[in-house]
Parts: sequence; C-alpha cells; structure tokens
Amino acid sequence: MTQWVYSFGTNLTEGRADMRELLGGKGANLAEMCSIGLPVPPGFTISTALCTYYYSNDKNYPDSLEKEVTAAISRLEQEMGMAFGDAQNPLLVSVRSGARVSMPGMMDTVLNLGLNDETVEGLAKKSGDPRFAWDSYRRFIMMYGDVVLGVAHHDFEDILDTHKRDEGFTQDTEVSDSGWKQIVADFKALALRETGKPFPSDPQEQLWGAISAVFNSWMVPRAITYRKIHDIPADWGTAVNVQAMVFGNMGQDCATGVAFTRDPSTGENYFYGEYLVNAQGEDVVAGIRTPQSLTIKGRKKEGSVLPSMEEIMPEVFAQLDDVRLKLERHYREMQDIEFTVQQGKLYMLQTRNGKRTTAAALKIAVDMVEEKLVTQEEALLRLDPQALDQLLHPTLDPMAHKTILAKGLPASPGAAYGAVCFTADAAEARASAGETIILVRRETSPEDIHGMYAAAGILTSRGGMTSHAAVVARGMGRPCVAGAGSIRIDPEAKTMIIADNQIIEGDMITIDGATGEVMLGTVPTIQPQLSEDFVSIMKWADTHRRMRVRANAETPLDAQTAVKFGAEGIGLCRTEHMFFDPARIQNVREMIFASTREDRQKALEKLLPAQRDDFLALFRIMQNLPVTIRLLDPPLHEFLPQSEEDIHDFAHSAGLDQDNVRRRLADLHEANPMLGHRGCRLGLTYPEIYAMQVRAILEAALEMKMQDGVTVIPEIMIPLVGMQQELAILKKLAEETAQTVFAEKGVEIDYLIGTMIELPRAALTADMIAQDAAFFSFGTNDLTQTTLGLSRDDSASFMDDYIKQGIFARDPFATLDRDGVGQLIQIAAQKGRATKQDLKLGICGEHGGDPSSIAFCEETGLDYVSCSPYRVPIARLAAAQASIRLKKASSLGKSLQHAKKKAA
Amino acid sequence: MTQWVYSFGTNLTEGRADMRELLGGKGANLAEMCSIGLPVPPGFTISTALCTYYYSNDKNYPDSLEKEVTAAISRLEQEMGMAFGDAQNPLLVSVRSGARVSMPGMMDTVLNLGLNDETVEGLAKKSGDPRFAWDSYRRFIMMYGDVVLGVAHHDFEDILDTHKRDEGFTQDTEVSDSGWKQIVADFKALALRETGKPFPSDPQEQLWGAISAVFNSWMVPRAITYRKIHDIPADWGTAVNVQAMVFGNMGQDCATGVAFTRDPSTGENYFYGEYLVNAQGEDVVAGIRTPQSLTIKGRKKEGSVLPSMEEIMPEVFAQLDDVRLKLERHYREMQDIEFTVQQGKLYMLQTRNGKRTTAAALKIAVDMVEEKLVTQEEALLRLDPQALDQLLHPTLDPMAHKTILAKGLPASPGAAYGAVCFTADAAEARASAGETIILVRRETSPEDIHGMYAAAGILTSRGGMTSHAAVVARGMGRPCVAGAGSIRIDPEAKTMIIADNQIIEGDMITIDGATGEVMLGTVPTIQPQLSEDFVSIMKWADTHRRMRVRANAETPLDAQTAVKFGAEGIGLCRTEHMFFDPARIQNVREMIFASTREDRQKALEKLLPAQRDDFLALFRIMQNLPVTIRLLDPPLHEFLPQSEEDIHDFAHSAGLDQDNVRRRLADLHEANPMLGHRGCRLGLTYPEIYAMQVRAILEAALEMKMQDGVTVIPEIMIPLVGMQQELAILKKLAEETAQTVFAEKGVEIDYLIGTMIELPRAALTADMIAQDAAFFSFGTNDLTQTTLGLSRDDSASFMDDYIKQGIFARDPFATLDRDGVGQLIQIAAQKGRATKQDLKLGICGEHGGDPSSIAFCEETGLDYVSCSPYRVPIARLAAAQASIRLKKASSLGKSLQHAKKKAA
Repeated sequence: MTQWVYSFGTNLTEGRADMRELLGGKGANLAEMCSIGLPVPPGFTISTALCTYYYSNDKNYPDSLEKEVTAAISRLEQEMGMAFGDAQNPLLVSVRSGARVSMPGMMDTVLNLGLNDETVEGLAKKSGDPRFAWDSYRRFIMMYGDVVLGVAHHDFEDILDTHKRDEGFTQDTEVSDSGWKQIVADFKALALRETGKPFPSDPQEQLWGAISAVFNSWMVPRAITYRKIHDIPADWGTAVNVQAMVFGNMGQDCATGVAFTRDPSTGENYFYGEYLVNAQGEDVVAGIRTPQSLTIKGRKKEGSVLPSMEEIMPEVFAQLDDVRLKLERHYREMQDIEFTVQQGKLYMLQTRNGKRTTAAALKIAVDMVEEKLVTQEEALLRLDPQALDQLLHPTLDPMAHKTILAKGLPASPGAAYGAVCFTADAAEARASAGETIILVRRETSPEDIHGMYAAAGILTSRGGMTSHAAVVARGMGRPCVAGAGSIRIDPEAKTMIIADNQIIEGDMITIDGATGEVMLGTVPTIQPQLSEDFVSIMKWADTHRRMRVRANAETPLDAQTAVKFGAEGIGLCRTEHMFFDPARIQNVREMIFASTREDRQKALEKLLPAQRDDFLALFRIMQNLPVTIRLLDPPLHEFLPQSEEDIHDFAHSAGLDQDNVRRRLADLHEANPMLGHRGCRLGLTYPEIYAMQVRAILEAALEMKMQDGVTVIPEIMIPLVGMQQELAILKKLAEETAQTVFAEKGVEIDYLIGTMIELPRAALTADMIAQDAAFFSFGTNDLTQTTLGLSRDDSASFMDDYIKQGIFARDPFATLDRDGVGQLIQIAAQKGRATKQDLKLGICGEHGGDPSSIAFCEETGLDYVSCSPYRVPIARLAAAQASIRLKKASSLGKSLQHAKKKAA
Repeated sequence: MTQWVYSFGTNLTEGRADMRELLGGKGANLAEMCSIGLPVPPGFTISTALCTYYYSNDKNYPDSLEKEVTAAISRLEQEMGMAFGDAQNPLLVSVRSGARVSMPGMMDTVLNLGLNDETVEGLAKKSGDPRFAWDSYRRFIMMYGDVVLGVAHHDFEDILDTHKRDEGFTQDTEVSDSGWKQIVADFKALALRETGKPFPSDPQEQLWGAISAVFNSWMVPRAITYRKIHDIPADWGTAVNVQAMVFGNMGQDCATGVAFTRDPSTGENYFYGEYLVNAQGEDVVAGIRTPQSLTIKGRKKEGSVLPSMEEIMPEVFAQLDDVRLKLERHYREMQDIEFTVQQGKLYMLQTRNGKRTTAAALKIAVDMVEEKLVTQEEALLRLDPQALDQLLHPTLDPMAHKTILAKGLPASPGAAYGAVCFTADAAEARASAGETIILVRRETSPEDIHGMYAAAGILTSRGGMTSHAAVVARGMGRPCVAGAGSIRIDPEAKTMIIADNQIIEGDMITIDGATGEVMLGTVPTIQPQLSEDFVSIMKWADTHRRMRVRANAETPLDAQTAVKFGAEGIGLCRTEHMFFDPARIQNVREMIFASTREDRQKALEKLLPAQRDDFLALFRIMQNLPVTIRLLDPPLHEFLPQSEEDIHDFAHSAGLDQDNVRRRLADLHEANPMLGHRGCRLGLTYPEIYAMQVRAILEAALEMKMQDGVTVIPEIMIPLVGMQQELAILKKLAEETAQTVFAEKGVEIDYLIGTMIELPRAALTADMIAQDAAFFSFGTNDLTQTTLGLSRDDSASFMDDYIKQGIFARDPFATLDRDGVGQLIQIAAQKGRATKQDLKLGICGEHGGDPSSIAFCEETGLDYVSCSPYRVPIARLAAAQASIRLKKASSLGKSLQHAKKKAA
C-alpha cells in the first residue's frame, strides 16, 4: 500500500533531503535536519503523490490517508507531550505547502492551528500570558479565514483598525488581552457573515480544511501561470507539511530569526542574519520592529547599537552557530535558515540553499573550493553563467526608487540613464556637447550607428532580441531595451508617449537592459568591477572546458574588449559594419551605382586601403589568435541613402541625377530582403567586391608577417552558401586573388576558406559543401529564421503570445531550438565531418553566448563558440559547465555499462 | 588492344544502334541500317573513345589508329571498286562528326574529300560531266577551307560573287566548267594567303586534317557552352564518320531528298518528304530550287503541279517506301531520313527519330499503339508532358511576322494580344467596354486581381516564375510574361519604354507566355482544340499512374476548368483570394481594425455567409471529390488599403481617423513579410478568424449532405506550421468549432485536419507534427524559399546569372531542388509515416505541375500532386511516366538481384 504520510522528529524520521520529489523541498530538508540531529519541531509531510491522487480522483483522498494522518498526529502528541485539541495542554500545529521548487501563488502558511475558544484558555494558562494566547488565536483566525475560507484579508484588517481607532491606539502591541478577545469575536462574526458558516472550532476540521486548501492552491490561476512560465509540470504536485508549533513570542527568553550561513550579498564567510526577541517569524520581515544582527561583527558592520544575539543569548547563539557549521558541512552549500527560540530552546524551522548576488556566488564558490568543501567542478556547476552579466555592466542601484513606465525586451545588458534623443544625429550632437544620451528609435538601421555609439543606451519600440539595435548594442556593450511595443514614438514631433507620459527630446529616462524596464527620470547606477574571485572562476572554467571561446567583433574597441574578457580569437568579423563609416559610405555608394565593372573597380580601389587598415588593426590586437572574416553580407540597398535629404546630398556629391538615384533605389528594393540578393549572391554577381576584400585581408596578414613578425592565419568566410557550386566558385576566386597578391608581394602565407552554415539547404548538403570548406561556422540567427520561417524583426508582435501559449518554451532567437535548428546543426556536423574529418566547427550566431545553446554545442562536438565581447565570460563558464556535465554523463553511462556487463 | 575504328557496309558491319555511346548517334544508325540490309554507302566510324584518348594525350592519336584507318579505307575501296587518290577512278569520302546527341557548334560535314587537281579529272571523265566535277571540287575546297583550315566562308563567297558579277551571272548554275576551274584556282590562292600553306592536295593529308578538325571542334567555346547548358559531360566525346561519297547531282537519274516516315506536323501516317532531281543534299534545304513532294498524296495536299518522285521515279520510290516501312518496324519510331539516288541507285545517308509537333506526337503515339508497334507504356514515355501546354492555350500563328521587343520569363502559357493598360482599374474599365487588354504592371498584388481577370494577358517587369502575377495568371489560365526586366514602366505617366519604343496606354502589344516574348502590335493567335488523341493519351495515362492529380483552385471557374481537365479533387483552395472580393474587403478591413475581440467577431459574422457560399459553390462543382481548404495564410497587411486615395475612402466608410488608419498600417508593416505574422500564426493570435472559416467549411459541407445528398469530406489545412503545438492548439479549436456546429445542426459529418509542410522545421519534426495531422501537403513554394533562404519575388535579379554559372541547373521555383528541398520532403514523408502509417501525402506547390518534380513525388511515394488547373493534363501524363519508369526500374532491379542470386 502506498505510504502517503512521512513523519519527521526525534523518534521517527522517514524522509531525506534527496526525497525532494516526493516530499517537496521544505519537507525533505526538515527530515534531513532531523536525521543529522538538529533540533526541529516534530511533524509530518503529506507527499506530493497525494496531490496527484487528489486531482486524478475528483478531489477525493485515498481511504488510508485519514488513518495515516491520525497516527502521525499521535506520534506528534507523544513527542511533544501535548494533545491536539486538548483544552489543558493543547498541541498547536502549522500547515505549510511545499513543492519541489518554491512557487509563488501557492498557499503559504497557517500558524497556530488547533486553537479554539477552549484551547486558547489552555494556552493562556500554560504560557501564563493571556494576551499572547488571544493574540495567537486572532492571528490564526485571520490566516485561516484568508487562505482557507477565502475571507478577504483587508476585511480583518479593517476590524482591527476600527478597534485601534476607537481605543486611540496606533500599535498592535497596545491592544490588551480583552481587546484581542473582542476582536476574535468580531473576526468570527465576519467569517460567519462571509461564508455562511460558523468559523470551525474543531481542530480536526481545521486541519483537514488547511490540508485541502494547500492542495487546492496548486491549481489557482497564479500558480498555473507560474508553472507554465517556468516549465514546471502540473503533475509534480505539492506536499503539505504539518509541524508542531513553537513560539518565539512567549516572552523575553524567546526569539525568532532568519539567517544565511554566509553573507548573501558579498559572500563573505561569516554568520549573517537578523533576529528579534519575543517575536514571531512574520515580525522579522514585517518591518515594524527593527531586526537586530545575530553577531557582534554584523552589528558593527551595520553600525547598530542594538545588541546582537551573540551578546544577549550567548548560549543559544553558540548552538545556532554550531548548527550553521553542521549545515554547511552537510549540504556543502550556503544555507538560508529560519529558527525560533522558545523559552531558551532552539528550534530549526527551515533550511534551504540560500539565494545570493552574483558577486557573492563567485566568492562563495572560490572560498568553498579553498575550504575543500567542494571541487572546482562542483563550484563551477553551481554558478549561473547568465548572472555574470551583472558584473560586466552598470546595474541599477537596488536601493534607488524606480518609476517603471514600460517594459521591452532585455536586449543588451546594463543600465543607463540619459536625455532622450530621437535621431542619431541629435544623439551625436548632444553627446559631443557633453550630455549623456538615450537614443530612442522605432527601430535602428545601419545609418544610426554613429548615434548608437554616441548614446549611453538605446531604446526601440520594435524588433526582437536579435534586431539590429539589439545585435549592435550588445556588440558595443551599450545597454539596450528593444521592442517596447507600448511606446508610441513620433520622431518628427520629437516626442514619445509612454504610459500616458509625454516625453520630449532632452527629458531624462533610465533603461535597464537586463530586465527590459524603462523608467522615468534618472535612476542611479552602480559601475561594475571585476573581482579576484571572477578571475579565479574564469581560470578554472578555462581549464575545464573543451570548446574555445571567440568573440564577434569588427571594431578595435570590440576586439580589445573581447581580449580583455578572454576571447581566444574572433569568430565573426562582419565586414559590412566597416562600410558604414561616414568617410567610406560615399565610395560604397559609388561602387553600387557604378554602371560598368570598371567603374565599380575604381570605387573599390578607393575602399581597399581603408579595408586593409581595418583588418590590420584587428590582427594587431588579436596577434596570432584566429580571426574569421565574413565577406560582405547584407543587400546593397542597406548602404543607400533613404531620406530625401540624404538622396539629395548623395546625388549632388556623386554628380548623379536625383531621379536616377531614386530609380536605382526602387530597382534594389526587395520584398523580403532577408531572402534576397545578399551574402555570397553578391560575391557571385559582383566578384570584384569579394576580390577586393580578400585582397585587403591577405595584404594585411602579409604586413603582419613582414612588419610585426607575427603569423596570422586569416579565416575567410563566405556567407549564405546554400549550393556547393556557390562556395566552389568563390573559393576559386579567393584563391586566384591570393595567388595574385602573393606574386605581387613575393611572400606567401597560409589562410583558410570556409563558410557560414545558415541555410537549411547548406546543413542538409553539408557533405558536399564540406568538400570546399576548411571550416563551418553556424550562423544560427539566419538558420533560425529560415528553419522556422520566422523573421527576427517581425516576430516580436506575436512572440509573447507564442511563449504564453507554450508553443515556444523560450524565444528561439535567444535559446537555440534544439529540435529543429539543432537537428540541422547535428546533420551538418555529422555530414561535414564525414567528408572532412578535421573540419573546424563553430557557432557565431547570438546563441553562441547563451548557456543552454552552448551546452548543445558541446554535446554536438563543435570546436568553438563565438559571441559578443561582453558575453565571452558567460560563454567561458557555460562551456566549462557543459564540458563537466558531458563528462559526468559519459562516465555515468560507462559505469552503467560496466555494471550491466558485470551483471550479465 | 582497343578497337578504334568500326566499319559499316555490305561486307562488314561492326556497329549497332545500341552502340550510340561508342559510335555516336549517326554512326550507330548507319551501322544499324547496314545490318538490316538497307543500301548505305559503305564507310567507317572512329569511336568517341578516341576523342577522349586524344584529349587525355595532348592531342595525339594512339599508334594503332593509322593502321586501322588504312585498313578501313582499303575495305571501302574494295567494296566501291574505286581507289582513294586514284587519278582514274577516285574514291571520294565525306567526313562528319557524330556525338551521342546531336550538338550544335560542332564541325558538321566535309563532302567530296579526296579531290585534287588530278582526281578531279578522273571524276570528270567517269561522270562524263566536267562541270559537275569542278563544281564538286570547289565545294570541297570551300567546306574544307572553312571548317578545317579556318578560312572565313564569306571570303570564298566573295570570290564566287565577284566572278558572277564579272560574268554578268545571277545563278551558280550559269557558271561553266572553266569558270569553276578559275574559281578553284582563286580559292586555293585564298587558302595559301590565309594559312601560309598551299591547300592540301594529298587525299591522306586531307583525311587526317578533317578527322582532327572534328575532334578539335569538340572543345570550341560554342560546343562547351552548349554542353554546359544541356548538362552533357565533356568526356562523352564525339565520333568521326567517314563514308564513301554518292552523288545526287550526276544527272537526271540522280536525286536527293529528306523525308519523315509520318507527317511531323499532324502525325498522319503517310510518307512525308521532299526531293530534288539532280541535286546535292544542301540544295534541298537552300531554297533556291523548290523541292518537290515525294508522293502523289503529298503533291495533291500541297496543291503543287511539280511531279512527285512516286510519279517520275516509281521504281526507286517503291524501294524507298519499302525502306520507310522497314525502318519504322525496326526502330518502332517515326524516322527522319536522308537519301540520295545516284544513277538510279538508292542510298540511305541517315536515319534518326524525327522531331514533331505535340499534336503529331499524340497522333503518332496513339496510331503506333493501335498498329501494335509499341505498347501503351512506351507510347506514354515518348511524350513530353510540358509540350501538352501548347494544346491547352492559344499559340502564336507560326506564320505571322513578329517584332520582338523584350523577353521575360514564360510565366503562364498561352499567347495574347491587347491594348496596354497600366492599372487594374483601367484594364477593367476598358475590358468592360469590349476591348482586349494586356495588363502591364511592375508587379501585381492582390489588389490587382480584378484587372487580371479582365485582361487577356499580363506582363510584369519584376518577379519570378512564382511571383504573384505568375501564380495567379496560371490559376486563371491567363498568359503571363513576368520579370521582363528591360521594360521601364511609369504607371503615373501611363507609359513604358521597351527597347527604345515608347508605348502608351491603349497601344497594342502581344505576349507569348510559353516563350516569354513581348512583341509590338497584334500577332495573330491560334485557338487550342483538344483532339481525340489527347483524350486517348489521357485515358491511358490515368490507367498507368499511381498518384492522384488534384488542382489548386478557389473560384468556381478554376474548379470547373480543373474538372474539365480531369482533376480528381482540389489540393489547395487558398481562402484569402476570396477575401479580396470588393464586396467583402470592407468587412475584412473592419475585422483587422477591430480593437476588441467582440468587434472582430462582428466583422467576421458578416463574412461568414459569403465564405460559406464560396465553399458550397466549390463542393457543388467537385461533388464528392476531396477538397483541401487552407485557412487564412497571408499577413493581414495585404488586405489593407495602400494608396492615399484608398486610405481616405476606407477611413471615411469605416468611420475611422485617417491618421489612425496610417498608424495601424505602420504597425502592421513587416521587414520580411514572408517570414512574418502569417499562416497559423494568425490563427493563434486571432483564433476567431480560423473558427469562422472552419464553421463556414462545415456548414457548407452539411448543406451538401442535407440538400444535395452528397457526402463531402472536407480537408481543413492549417498553413505554416513549424511547431507541433501550433497544430495541436488549432486542431483543438477546429474540433471544438465542429462540435458546436454539429450540435446546432443536429447532424455530423466526417472531416480531416492536416497541415502544410512548408517550413524546414516542420519537415524535420514531422514525426511529432504527424501526431495531430491526418494529412501533409508539401507547400514547396515556401519550403523552397526557406530551405534555400531565397525569396521567389527577389531572386529574379540574379537567377539568370546563377543558372548561367551552373549553380542552379534549373530555377528551383519551377523544378524541385532534390538535394535540398527534396531531402526535406523525404525526411518528412518517412518520419510522418513512421508516426502514422496511413498519413495522406500530397504536394500543392508550383512543383506539383512540373514533370521532373512529379517524378520525384512518385519516387518519394506521395499520394497525390496538385497543380494549377491548366497543368492537370501535364501532371496526369507526367505521373503516368513516373509510375511506369519506377516500375521498370524496380523490375530491372529485381531481375538483377535474381541474376546475382543465380550466379551466386
């Protein structure tokens, strides 16, 4: 027969920490603490399996449950020497929910269950404090009325407030025992009025009511929504914990507190916590009385004069400090604990792994390795790579007041405030006058680059996580909130409307690129610092990872940032970004408007020296690290003037007729530019463009060799290849160009030619394409767009809806879609390596900086990931984690096989 | 030792018809004719293997070749009783190239080889006709000089013309023997001047020169280009045929002619050909003398008074007619033959399968089956399905004069002329006034539909084979030339410029959608007629094919056309086309502008009856054939007003602010609409739209059942599914709607829910998607776009270039890309059927009407293809061919296996 109820206590403990699935987190840890001899008020846990039973059986309980609960209560009574519902010596209990993971929206707690008009007198007599007893009783009715009977909490508050007003009181502590008695009567009258039934006085009825309330709360809308968002299956269910009450508010020898075994904000290894004498747990967090520090050290740190627990309850504190050490040794993790001291006796009510800041997480990880509590691998696995972002970018001062106006996508991390500008030109002008600027655009285009550079942060009302604004901002390390759809921007009028606020150019706003929040005015920020712990963790990560980590970078600034953060090369240098430089765009446009190959050649010759210098600058920074350079990718119309003014200016300076310019613009217009005349298709129709770029790359590499004595092996990458022939033809072009350059200079160098795999067809025919490629770099942005038929710029309008409906677990442009895009990557990797065993494989899409996607890359056997410079540390840690996990899984697999063999 | 030379003749014939690979087409057929006892001038063939040897050995011949050629020449001399280079009794030969397939650009023919100043006298004496001898000599020098020595043909012509002018002659026949003698001397002087060497007089030297010229011509640029375009491997090589000369111009008992064993333009079974007395082959085609009919019947048909061969050479004709029958029995195909009569004796010079019109091809196929010459399967395999198009659409009168102005893509077959209109409204207005119209647009959009209906043909300057204009025109059966990029249209000015001609509204032009030609003025057309032969062929095709053929249709007219052409259902009904109806577009727009779900519901309720009537009309035409209806697919912005005028009108009639309308337009704008908010994504964000459509479908089907007593099983198709969840959610919506409708009506019917597979992700995860799908329909237009990352609307600008460079063998939007898109279809078919064995599979992209793609569908095991109504006959034939070929291949495979087993 299924066991539904698991006791814990001094005499009998049936659970363990690793039974979290059955007992929930709280129940499992209570049992574990009992097992290791810590003082825990006895109790029992009704398992999560019962929750599942309850919902599959039309909200009925199995027959055996009542008997099990009754037996468990008896055990409780025995251990406590009290009796449930006994008028003289009443046992009171708390009832709490407890799922596998902590989950908001669920019923939280009912305390003091078991009190009624009779037992309250017993409690009064036993504690010698009628005021305490009646206060406990009214607290019970309030909680039970709210969470079990559904009577609104504020209706109870109203009664209490009226009473205090009538009496002229301001504090609850002024209410006398008779006052509480009157309030209890009023509370019960309220419950009768609201529910049509008298407030239950039978402790058994109270208990079953609370148990059912916990199970019912599993299916309230808030809980369902939370589970959906966090991908928690409904059939996990919740457990119910019933535990003997202990009181921290029975007098001056009582206390209650919460603590962390180490400082959760810095990670420092000292006992960090707060307590209150003669108080219940809720008082510590309610903020009416000022909680006091546990330790002398903590008190001094805070500059507080209120005595620490270490000072006024030295014996109990010593016990508690001992518990702290025991827990850390046992769990090998920093713990978040709750305790109560009842009449001088310490009780542990909860322990769980403590939440912490990223800085603290790093320090704790490093310290625990040094303390030999955990291995490097374990320490690395406990860190959240994404959280490292906090350390690399300015963050909002958590203490500052924020008026949130809107929420967009957290497109590029970091927080920034500044004066709003609606055009790139205005942003640049104001910034050069010394102002800090937030550039606000519906969406950005390559023409806005100078304004984005000038701005401290970027806000757009359209576009997704991989929109132009998002990608460029991440590359530059500028905070960016993208696709804040509720903002209505009128660039002509230089205004925007957010949540009914009209904001004009020059008004201050603050954006948080880590959360997507847009705030009114200036919210102070905190500048980042890289600690020694960070350096240690990165060093460990580097020794544990197999994959290399490169950066996507094209400017010297990006490249320097990348090197600073530990990039081992450039995985993607997007040459087109170099074409937007105002000093060159004129030549680029002349090249596009050239009507003959000769004219185009002339314009390209003007671009050649600048382009060569671009690469030389990158090579100098990267020294002999690999640099992958992607030849021109975007459609040519991206380089053309768009506004009437620009068209006029360009026509004038190029000596062209304006209508002629407009006609060419119309000719180059595309219905779906993402699928248009771009990538290698440009190289095939205008081979002279690619020839110029290849020449610039090789001339720069030759100069490195001759002048700097550094051997660079440039990796020339052909984009958007779908057909084997495309690569074959362009490879030949590159090789011929190389031969010409080598002949001119009289020197040769090695170089690689490879391709992006960013079209499904390329992945599917990778065996053929690999014949002409030395490397594949998975361009997962475009590969996601084509595999899913989903434009990253246009999907924002329904992406939310898709995630809410559970169609996407996560935005596929942020986290790789394994079933679809991932399948293609696996096919390509396997077919590619079948053709060429030593084919170098990497990823250079946005996913290269996403931990879950990096894990996929490790599993697929890629050689490196490449991401924006600011994500390099994240990628280093994520790659290490993936490597460690894969090794563990494989050695587990081996042991299993070994065991099987032995058994066979 | 390799045999390089293969003799043919009366005494020794070493080749056969099936040795075409080694001997080329001409050589193999000459040998075959010898084998079956036909009179062929003896000769020999130097094999194609020699050509390969020649190029792999630096243009050297194997040592053994000379001996083999000498032996073959001796055999020739023996058989002819003449000697090569003999001054008294000279043997003359012709030298011709002959590859596996006939190939322009190659050296064609050198006649009369062996003549020199001595042998010419022998020929004069033997023939008794010095003028004939010297004429033959000058012809030889001219041909040899041109094709072997590289002296320009027109330089020879100039000498001849000068001579005639000096003598006052107008015709060659006026030149006397001494005149020819003088011309021969001038020709030789020219050759010496141009080549620096005397014209070769040694017959051996002449022979080897001609042989080398043939092999060298294999690698001239024109030949290389032709091979590239037609995918002919260079290592096939060419053969050389050396054959004894016979003369049709040795007197009145000589003749020469060309003939077809049946009439190549009608297919009628009678001897169709022309001959000339006392002439050489080239004279028949040169057009100087009028060729005469072979038969009395032919002469009468042509109304000619010139006597037929049947009349003036009855004995030789009887021999020839016998040869005709022998050849048809032997080859079991209509033959194209050349013959010469020398002094009363018949010689066959060539036989090959004859080219014919499509009408003739059908008649010959049907007749030969009736004559039991071939089986139905063989007859079907010989037909070109694409060519059937000619029979279904008007064609240009081949006799009419054409002034071709431009060439675009042959986007929808048929020819049409009409007055140019530059807007849909103008087209409609003029058409309703009785004019015939050609609608000319840069590109068409759904707003142009009424103008396209009104027009007789459509011409666009942009877009590819699957652009909106092309797809809609094919559906309507309107001729269309798309993407004629050289045309510059100015719709405001109502003019266009083509090849320097300014054409204004109302000017007449003619377009030929089968060739892509655009012509000035009115070119007469011929209306199509479906013959009895067509009906027979279709009937046979139907009995031999496995796959069903459906049509893509949404209007009653389309559906009726489809049924007329034998469609077995509708494979794709695009419901959005129904939304553009002027009577409904207002409601559609109100639906889009609705700000609440209630308002949207109201607008949809107005659309429901019309939509239900749409489906009812289709069901009535299709009766109980299956009808697959795709729910709304295009992005909503396609339905919105675009021009300022339309925006004004719509805002006014809908009671909306114009700025409001513009803002919504801007909100709905997408960077890449093809990858945007469309397909099932609309159904998921606006479920009420799909619910309305499902309701309309089921209400119509219920009405068919109750009123007409016909059971329709509608197939509801969800477009653009990429994620399993999308289909699951929408399937549930459809089922719930169905339950509601059934409950309301108190009647239930069967229906199927399935999906388009048009995204790579859908194909890759077909095992999961199949869980909720009763059928898959491969939407290969979109699947090609996403798999190749190639927009069909934007690829026209570089598609030509891609095909020229050999990157695409054919436009992948016309012929399925097997390696990429095809691979995905195979994956999807296999995974889909692994989940659901009876999953119905079809194709509804443009490829469903393309024979090569249909063959792929057969190989992949699809259940049906669906194509535009006018392509249904093509699909029926192509499906039959594919089925027959697959069966043959599989039974061949089985025999091979069987043979292997026996051997083992």
